[in-house]
Amino acid sequence: MSESRLIYLPLGGAGEIGMNAYVYSVGPEDDERLIVVDLGVTFPDMDGTPGVDLIMADVAWLAERRDRLEAIFITHAHEDHIGALAQLWPKLRVPVYARAFTAHLGRMKMEEAGLDPEEIRTVSAWPETVKAGPFTVGFAPVSHSIPESSGLVIDTPHGRIVHTGDFKLDLSPGVGEPYDEAMWTEIARDGVQALVCDSTNVFSPLPGRSESEIGPGIEELIAAQPGLVAATTFASNIARLKTLAEAGQRAGRSIVLLGRAMRRMVTAGIETGILADFPKVVSPEDAADIPRDHLMLLTSGSQGEHRAATAQLSRGKYLGIELKEGDTFLFSSKTIPGNEKSVIRIVNAFSEMGVDVVDDSGGAYHVSGHANGPDLERFHGVIRPRMLIPMHGEHRHLRAHVRLGEASGLPGVIAPNGTMVDLTGDRPRVVEHIEAGRTYKDGSILIGAFDGIVRDRIRMALNGHVTVTAILEEDEPVGDPWCEVVGLPETGVTGAPLVDVMEEDLSQFLHRADRKTLISDDKLDDAMRRIVRKTASDEIGKKPEVTVVISRLS
Amino acid sequence: MSESRLIYLPLGGAGEIGMNAYVYSVGPEDDERLIVVDLGVTFPDMDGTPGVDLIMADVAWLAERRDRLEAIFITHAHEDHIGALAQLWPKLRVPVYARAFTAHLGRMKMEEAGLDPEEIRTVSAWPETVKAGPFTVGFAPVSHSIPESSGLVIDTPHGRIVHTGDFKLDLSPGVGEPYDEAMWTEIARDGVQALVCDSTNVFSPLPGRSESEIGPGIEELIAAQPGLVAATTFASNIARLKTLAEAGQRAGRSIVLLGRAMRRMVTAGIETGILADFPKVVSPEDAADIPRDHLMLLTSGSQGEHRAATAQLSRGKYLGIELKEGDTFLFSSKTIPGNEKSVIRIVNAFSEMGVDVVDDSGGAYHVSGHANGPDLERFHGVIRPRMLIPMHGEHRHLRAHVRLGEASGLPGVIAPNGTMVDLTGDRPRVVEHIEAGRTYKDGSILIGAFDGIVRDRIRMALNGHVTVTAILEEDEPVGDPWCEVVGLPETGVTGAPLVDVMEEDLSQFLHRADRKTLISDDKLDDAMRRIVRKTASDEIGKKPEVTVVISRLS
Repeated sequence: MSESRLIYLPLGGAGEIGMNAYVYSVGPEDDERLIVVDLGVTFPDMDGTPGVDLIMADVAWLAERRDRLEAIFITHAHEDHIGALAQLWPKLRVPVYARAFTAHLGRMKMEEAGLDPEEIRTVSAWPETVKAGPFTVGFAPVSHSIPESSGLVIDTPHGRIVHTGDFKLDLSPGVGEPYDEAMWTEIARDGVQALVCDSTNVFSPLPGRSESEIGPGIEELIAAQPGLVAATTFASNIARLKTLAEAGQRAGRSIVLLGRAMRRMVTAGIETGILADFPKVVSPEDAADIPRDHLMLLTSGSQGEHRAATAQLSRGKYLGIELKEGDTFLFSSKTIPGNEKSVIRIVNAFSEMGVDVVDDSGGAYHVSGHANGPDLERFHGVIRPRMLIPMHGEHRHLRAHVRLGEASGLPGVIAPNGTMVDLTGDRPRVVEHIEAGRTYKDGSILIGAFDGIVRDRIRMALNGHVTVTAILEEDEPVGDPWCEVVGLPETGVTGAPLVDVMEEDLSQFLHRADRKTLISDDKLDDAMRRIVRKTASDEIGKKPEVTVVISRLS
Repeated sequence: MSESRLIYLPLGGAGEIGMNAYVYSVGPEDDERLIVVDLGVTFPDMDGTPGVDLIMADVAWLAERRDRLEAIFITHAHEDHIGALAQLWPKLRVPVYARAFTAHLGRMKMEEAGLDPEEIRTVSAWPETVKAGPFTVGFAPVSHSIPESSGLVIDTPHGRIVHTGDFKLDLSPGVGEPYDEAMWTEIARDGVQALVCDSTNVFSPLPGRSESEIGPGIEELIAAQPGLVAATTFASNIARLKTLAEAGQRAGRSIVLLGRAMRRMVTAGIETGILADFPKVVSPEDAADIPRDHLMLLTSGSQGEHRAATAQLSRGKYLGIELKEGDTFLFSSKTIPGNEKSVIRIVNAFSEMGVDVVDDSGGAYHVSGHANGPDLERFHGVIRPRMLIPMHGEHRHLRAHVRLGEASGLPGVIAPNGTMVDLTGDRPRVVEHIEAGRTYKDGSILIGAFDGIVRDRIRMALNGHVTVTAILEEDEPVGDPWCEVVGLPETGVTGAPLVDVMEEDLSQFLHRADRKTLISDDKLDDAMRRIVRKTASDEIGKKPEVTVVISRLS
């Protein structure tokens, strides 16, 4: 039997920002005991995943080893860390550990999926720990943009791992625990084998700013506005909601929460005791009786999500409330790459209404939830690990983060999804690559990214679709073949109807085809498909997707 | 007969950045003589226009009045100003005027489309003018990011219009004419009725920087690199190509041009005498014999275009050249909103190769080609028009630009596409709204944005497609109906094949249907479509697009 080793294996979240899922294992090769940290989602787009609802890591590798899987740990309740829990849990079926606020939201997800919420177990903050096979895991509080975010302190027979989760070094985060350097120094005192570390903001060259710095500016902004003020941020950023609501309250305004996600998060905050002192909110109905210059809306959908409150307000009324000339809308948020067009569409719609839009271009009304370059360096210095494994970043972030570590003599490795890294020795050692796929939630079904289903949909979106029908009896054509098109122009360059030209060409072919062709469905299918694509290419400059239906009467 | 008036009517480019097309008319209502300024394109995306090749203004309104159209004027050779010329010219068939470099590229477009290049007529710079009906039009040089960009000085019986085109106030633009305030002061001396003005950078709060400012920093960057250096920018930004190539040359490197667009632009620059002193370039083949640290590539595709040289290099070799660990890639460009994901994909691919990517995040390696807020104010002050019409901007830009003018007492109006504005009086007056549509080049065919063709393709991308076939003889079903699916999962929540469940449900329906249903193609089509959508919704949580094919044997 081979020697025991300590393995790190990202299945998601390394080489991308999203769908976090990290495996750790301890034991001899092929007999390791495993835990998984986070089960998150990433969001689809029209470019690569039209019609898909959610994207998550493929956990087939993990499911095959389910008998050796000890537990799932969730660092915090952002969707890219917890969003796939209810989808993937049935494949894994082991206990899930999280702190109270995260567990609260996890249970709601399990219930909505018809699963047992009691599979989610609440753990208190470090120094409390959970034993899971050879692992002992504690939830050490970090500051981030959602309450009770935690770094994991993972003790193994091969030493201690610090897995940061998402974090920043905020000394006064408003809601949640401040960065506690004394605690981390104590955690690191006896040596840390590996620091597995958030890389999101590695390119930000200045130390991060605190949540507490933006409140006064927001209050000043609100106080100066003559009309209604609305503001959006991530619904889960409860600290920001509080910052915004308190600034509004100090500026003499009543607070209205618009959007399911926003109400759900504030409720979760109140129920778990995190948000005891949130300003009193009024209902959208009661808002009608309050003068506009005494109102402040907090709206969901800072990324331009089509169905969220922000987008709905940009299209007209939402729960009876409407923005007007002289009102102000604040984006207290950063637009995630890929969402620019949706956000800009909303800004222009507000512009058409005469609403002034204030965004974060100057950095005055938003701070990030992730540690910047200098903060990462500082944290490396506090933990002083033997090795650094950057995670939670695209390849460029991981690469820059490895460099940052190397600059102070810290050995590191770029380990994108599927890279199995042995953490046992003096420095990280890549031992294997496994195929790290993606699973799509597509309607109510989980499908694989490489199943070809979405690829076929993309092809229809680009090329349109033609159905060809032909009927044969005793291997002789009955009548003429015909075509139905979807997503193609009616007439081609010759001016004739596209369908007529295709049917004419198909008919000529079919009535001249030899017996060997006519008796073979494959040959007919292939030939008619080629004719349709060739004719369409000549007529409209496009080669459509084709479904050939051959019916044989008997 | 009504009095003569001067009308401004944007058909494209106002309320968006792209597909510029502006109409001016002079004369009594319904008997105006018209000119059009610019015929540009905007680019499609998967979100709204999958499979579309180009998007341009719908010129139906103009085509209906073709007998009263005098001429087309093109301000400069950027695709968003000239890209639709060859597509739309056949609908308009009037002379096209442009300066030499623009005309050169316009003729190439006409030739490629099989049209007569001699329809494009070359005009020298202001004070030369062209007479077109009641209009007298001069091309006054402005600085921008492509050579021979011009503002138009349009004299009419109702006074002078200054139509800026795209412009900035660059006193040393490298290639092309510097900003000439004396010329503009002279042009404005006897009064300008309306300033129709670029709004792209109205939100930029600092005065714009000159092209000449970035050369030294680029040279310093290149000189410090140990390996090959590649750089990308817009191919049409000949001044930048020269800035980059000269910096490379001074740093002791041979220049290689990669990409058809890049070679085409440099050739056009040389042929029209604009680029007489461009550094000598070596061919990709000869580059193989030059040490990597003596090479500099200029590559097309700064926006992440999939087939351009930059993207191809990020995927592997291009014309025998390959980037490696230790090489450097510079984006001397700004990423246009919507292109972030494509650009980031390339950056990560380079990161995987070990190539260091330098972007313009600090503003050190790129300057914009458009006038910033303070520059616009300065230009308003030079022209001192009676009224301001902001163009070349989304609604938010137009709105901010109107405000900027109003702040110094200049009356303006927000006039998005389709807004007919009377410029005759003391201030702009909106007199009518026409429907301003979009035309898509889709393969080789021009289709309308509202034809439903692209909508159907988007639906197939989101929902998949099912073909249902049923055969009837004398109003009785022959055999069972069957289904073919594209872009849908094979099995549903029950675990049974989706096609089997749908066929079973269709079969039950068909064999129980009454005669009234069976004799009606419409009723059968409708019923079977509903069954397929209902069954799919139950099985896979999606309602697919359905094509029903009913064959009746006779």
